[in-house]
Amino acid sequence: MAGSTFGTLYRLTTFGESHGDSIGGIIEGFPAGFLVDFDFIQSELDRRKPGQSSIVTQRKESDKVVFLSGIFEGKTLGTPIAFLIKNENVKTEDYNHLSETFRPSHADFTYAKKYGIRDWRGGGRSSARETASRVVAGAFAKSFLKSIGLEIFAFVDQVGTISLSDEEIAQVSRVEIENIVRCPIEERAKEMEDLIKQIRKEGDTIGGSVYCKCNGVPVGLGEPVFDKINAVLGQAMFSINAVKGVEFGTGFDSVQKKGSEINDLFKDDFTTKTNHSSGIQGGISNGMPIEFRVAFKPVATIMKDQITVNENGESKVLIGKGRHDPCVVPRAVVIVESMAAIVLLDFYLRQRAYQ
Amino acid sequence: MAGSTFGTLYRLTTFGESHGDSIGGIIEGFPAGFLVDFDFIQSELDRRKPGQSSIVTQRKESDKVVFLSGIFEGKTLGTPIAFLIKNENVKTEDYNHLSETFRPSHADFTYAKKYGIRDWRGGGRSSARETASRVVAGAFAKSFLKSIGLEIFAFVDQVGTISLSDEEIAQVSRVEIENIVRCPIEERAKEMEDLIKQIRKEGDTIGGSVYCKCNGVPVGLGEPVFDKINAVLGQAMFSINAVKGVEFGTGFDSVQKKGSEINDLFKDDFTTKTNHSSGIQGGISNGMPIEFRVAFKPVATIMKDQITVNENGESKVLIGKGRHDPCVVPRAVVIVESMAAIVLLDFYLRQRAYQ
Amino acid sequence: MAGSTFGTLYRLTTFGESHGDSIGGIIEGFPAGFLVDFDFIQSELDRRKPGQSSIVTQRKESDKVVFLSGIFEGKTLGTPIAFLIKNENVKTEDYNHLSETFRPSHADFTYAKKYGIRDWRGGGRSSARETASRVVAGAFAKSFLKSIGLEIFAFVDQVGTISLSDEEIAQVSRVEIENIVRCPIEERAKEMEDLIKQIRKEGDTIGGSVYCKCNGVPVGLGEPVFDKINAVLGQAMFSINAVKGVEFGTGFDSVQKKGSEINDLFKDDFTTKTNHSSGIQGGISNGMPIEFRVAFKPVATIMKDQITVNENGESKVLIGKGRHDPCVVPRAVVIVESMAAIVLLDFYLRQRAYQ
Amino acid sequence: MAGSTFGTLYRLTTFGESHGDSIGGIIEGFPAGFLVDFDFIQSELDRRKPGQSSIVTQRKESDKVVFLSGIFEGKTLGTPIAFLIKNENVKTEDYNHLSETFRPSHADFTYAKKYGIRDWRGGGRSSARETASRVVAGAFAKSFLKSIGLEIFAFVDQVGTISLSDEEIAQVSRVEIENIVRCPIEERAKEMEDLIKQIRKEGDTIGGSVYCKCNGVPVGLGEPVFDKINAVLGQAMFSINAVKGVEFGTGFDSVQKKGSEINDLFKDDFTTKTNHSSGIQGGISNGMPIEFRVAFKPVATIMKDQITVNENGESKVLIGKGRHDPCVVPRAVVIVESMAAIVLLDFYLRQRAYQ
Repeated sequence: MAGSTFGTLYRLTTFGESHGDSIGGIIEGFPAGFLVDFDFIQSELDRRKPGQSSIVTQRKESDKVVFLSGIFEGKTLGTPIAFLIKNENVKTEDYNHLSETFRPSHADFTYAKKYGIRDWRGGGRSSARETASRVVAGAFAKSFLKSIGLEIFAFVDQVGTISLSDEEIAQVSRVEIENIVRCPIEERAKEMEDLIKQIRKEGDTIGGSVYCKCNGVPVGLGEPVFDKINAVLGQAMFSINAVKGVEFGTGFDSVQKKGSEINDLFKDDFTTKTNHSSGIQGGISNGMPIEFRVAFKPVATIMKDQITVNENGESKVLIGKGRHDPCVVPRAVVIVESMAAIVLLDFYLRQRAYQ
Repeated sequence: MAGSTFGTLYRLTTFGESHGDSIGGIIEGFPAGFLVDFDFIQSELDRRKPGQSSIVTQRKESDKVVFLSGIFEGKTLGTPIAFLIKNENVKTEDYNHLSETFRPSHADFTYAKKYGIRDWRGGGRSSARETASRVVAGAFAKSFLKSIGLEIFAFVDQVGTISLSDEEIAQVSRVEIENIVRCPIEERAKEMEDLIKQIRKEGDTIGGSVYCKCNGVPVGLGEPVFDKINAVLGQAMFSINAVKGVEFGTGFDSVQKKGSEINDLFKDDFTTKTNHSSGIQGGISNGMPIEFRVAFKPVATIMKDQITVNENGESKVLIGKGRHDPCVVPRAVVIVESMAAIVLLDFYLRQRAYQ
Repeated sequence: MAGSTFGTLYRLTTFGESHGDSIGGIIEGFPAGFLVDFDFIQSELDRRKPGQSSIVTQRKESDKVVFLSGIFEGKTLGTPIAFLIKNENVKTEDYNHLSETFRPSHADFTYAKKYGIRDWRGGGRSSARETASRVVAGAFAKSFLKSIGLEIFAFVDQVGTISLSDEEIAQVSRVEIENIVRCPIEERAKEMEDLIKQIRKEGDTIGGSVYCKCNGVPVGLGEPVFDKINAVLGQAMFSINAVKGVEFGTGFDSVQKKGSEINDLFKDDFTTKTNHSSGIQGGISNGMPIEFRVAFKPVATIMKDQITVNENGESKVLIGKGRHDPCVVPRAVVIVESMAAIVLLDFYLRQRAYQ
Repeated sequence: MAGSTFGTLYRLTTFGESHGDSIGGIIEGFPAGFLVDFDFIQSELDRRKPGQSSIVTQRKESDKVVFLSGIFEGKTLGTPIAFLIKNENVKTEDYNHLSETFRPSHADFTYAKKYGIRDWRGGGRSSARETASRVVAGAFAKSFLKSIGLEIFAFVDQVGTISLSDEEIAQVSRVEIENIVRCPIEERAKEMEDLIKQIRKEGDTIGGSVYCKCNGVPVGLGEPVFDKINAVLGQAMFSINAVKGVEFGTGFDSVQKKGSEINDLFKDDFTTKTNHSSGIQGGISNGMPIEFRVAFKPVATIMKDQITVNENGESKVLIGKGRHDPCVVPRAVVIVESMAAIVLLDFYLRQRAYQ
């Protein structure tokens, strides 16, 4: 209950500090006898890894995952799958100036006060580097879910003020997005890329949002009342670094709607004519696509000097330097997908127990 | 793990269908020796109960809570506190026409498919009536948190298109809100009330949102990485019926912001000059107020006829009748507060274990 | 995590003090659509209830269970099943002399120190009266398990020095035991009854043990490594009041055995020629009967005066009076069965999730 | 909930197959800022490791633990502590003959049926090699508990029919036991050693038992009703490979006792004159030593040929060969201590949350 474990029947426990020996995790509850697609897992990690393009952090990490247990002759054993990813590009000296200084809008101060001690190198445990472990567990979950016809894909739908329209979002179907921004509308992607490059040149960072679609979700996943499928997906998304908002289906726009406008009327085959509910009724999947949007704030590390305080409350100038992402959403796409996959596999197993 | 339990050290398990014998719950982990303020608990329930004003459902329930255990001579024993609330205004006949028909955007279909059986009277387990149990556990939590200087209060900040401005929201401080809409700006409250009455007259329903402020949160609450304070609050809020969106601090607006604009700079006393982060850094409280907004869709039950299907997929006309809320947010205010209180007390106890 | 919840997918949370309003619980995770056998549940409670024969406590309780939720038209809904049993024969005045005095080998002192407050009436939460709630959840589990061919039955195999031989135990098969001691060998039952009556006459109490057999357990239940089926059964049994020892199969006698003596050799149908392992290999069921013995100490309440201390550490004479069981095992038989059933149903559901 | 996690606030999740890459685990909830005694941890592992003396298995493993996270500049961070131990002496060819054959009284059959796949090399996940991970978590727990005056020590009290008397056991106090059997009475230790050597010469194995004492336990640890301290210790002990029985204090002998004989009467300082209750009343510690005995069956691997079956139910002769322990208890002593320490630290933290 110390917070590094997620899931009920499909469970992930992660470990690791950004500049420690390694990060990694233990996956529990993945079904036995499943052929592991190692290439797929690595390709998912590559979608998240730093240094993959010109618009993300230039930290160099190969992010090669090593499996320690739970797999035998290429198949899962049903026992815990442990894995680790070495931290290679560890430059402790880059962070020496932070050993006693609290960066604004980072977790330096809160960790220091919570624990009385912190690993100040690159954010330690609070670094988003931890999310690589989620991508591994997510890749396993995706593989399994694909085998039952459930597919999850996410994409960038907004960076700064450049956004896809509702119509554009509605039209996006499963395609590999080739561009480095991971926005499926090429024209918009180009604008976003230009904006991110401009922001980087300013030494600043910019927010963005990720839209996720889950197709082929079986009817009946989710548990009343606290473990509604949207509630657990909500926890999953807010557990991702820098997330400030989550909305399902019509989301915040629902506030302005009338019931007669957004009730999803049934067709004779029990699908619904509209999907304002995002495939969820009473916290339980109804078979329609589950869709949600996740808002990310701009990265707190900027290349501009900021006035901050040290452990003694003394004013310090924080020099803007180091490696960072000018915009986090291109790398966050696979993290959103991974967390969604972990949640949906967990609910799938939970439902199977009772049937 | 069947979904009716919430919390780690401070835990609530709820039970009950809308038109069964009763609803209620068991509270575990409330500290021993605490003097119970029964009047306060009942007053909180009264803020949620149906029939309290002209703009909410006219179902008549006294919602009197009865305690069965865990309290001795007026004080908590540290053992489970069980309680129940009778369902009094049970009109099964009102729902007979629904025994084989699925209402649009309700949980009738999903429950039927998930369980193969459902209590079709008033939504059964999926009814928001269940939230009364949360108010009881929330009232205990609030009492305890108040004793350590932590206060939680929420209010309606939007109904339809009538909304408070950011400046208005910023100025709201702890006051008892007298009006029936539970919006702290009287002028706006009046407009909202008029709108709700107008909507009711149309036989329709309207969405709204609730804004919640938590002041006096100790530094260091929240657990990395999956149990970030915003992640668990996110789950808590999305577990409330009809919630479609949750955002913290600058929330979805963060998407359009630059890091240099919304980084929260420290003062010498470790408070921050701004609070875009909503009192949370890296998932852990920093001592600033935790603030978030919760979006509610319009209630699915409307007084207009709708075309729907029955269990056999045959088209049926659903006659608009019965008791319902034209707008749910006035009653949701105390539910939001209660869930926030449950989360914060849980994190407080979790943190205390390690100190 | 406050200790009143047991189980993972089939879960029971209990509440109640011995002389409070009522005791009861919430059952989560029982499969939906199951026809409830109310008579069977009540008959199980009757096997445990006080006052049922001359050799048990004469406290008068009808122990009628009332269901509050989770059942509709006689069938389970899949939602939480809440129930309560009123405390009827509450004689607070019988316990007034104990409000400041700690009884030897009771939980008075430990509860007082743990919580700083206690309900001193009849042991409060520490009373074995709580186990009635387990019998309710156990009866549900038994009904379900019976439907898959799994039967659990327990009996008294020892009281004081009067015990069944290994051969006698081996021969016991499922029969309703008519005698009040609940020992299946009539001659031995008579001796035990006489002994208990003699002990009661002395104003004393006597220990005993219960032997439990689980037949028809499917192969593959139990989870490595901490949730071995014997490990969770061990917790379940030690959670019953007054239990001091648990052993599986050859148990403590294994200490003196050689591997060549007690290895269970396979037959061609994968059953084993012997069952020293008690149907469990590596913590997982192998299809052979699971058998275990549970040792109960004599009840701490005796009719003899004892010297004890009050809250201030002052010597007090504790007068031997009140209602009590001279020997607890006849009533414990159904509690042992119930806890075994809860554990086995939970493991059955857990296994089903992964298949 | 897949069974490889143990504990509530102090939690251990283990991974690893006997002949896979490595074994290890993740420790959650260890308090921050604690100076790690690496030498002590390794010395505890050395007490368990194979090849340490002539009477244990001759598998050669250095069992050097490597820490991957959670420690910074020699102190704990409060974040997950991940560690691994390489499997060095992996001789897969030793087990080739077992790839399709089920060894008697091993978990080969049950794992095969549960998962449909198994790592047949040396027992895979079911191997007691997994317990090395528990020793690491136990060493952390012991260090912390020592800092609050709580000490745990165990010893061998019986091998075959050679046993310590109750008086001998009562006299054992904390001493480093130098002999390889780990029995504190030298004369008895020599007899046990001779017996084990004799048994080994016969190609057989022998059972034994371990006695554990926990001194300095604070009053008030343990949670009613399912998480009684003896219940969770019971689960912990039965989760250790080959354990067939557990008893606390007077244990199975309680069956023959009268209440007047074994009630533990208070002294004026709230200690008790006797300790039949093993320091636990109502599942909660009373400050007296917690003492319990754990019975281990003889190791199932023997050097004699046995008739068994393969996956098709065909008879096979299992040749007695390979490395094994003739008696497991000398190496089990530290495992028992470790699991006890994990349980007690968990309860200590749980209690601290509520005070």
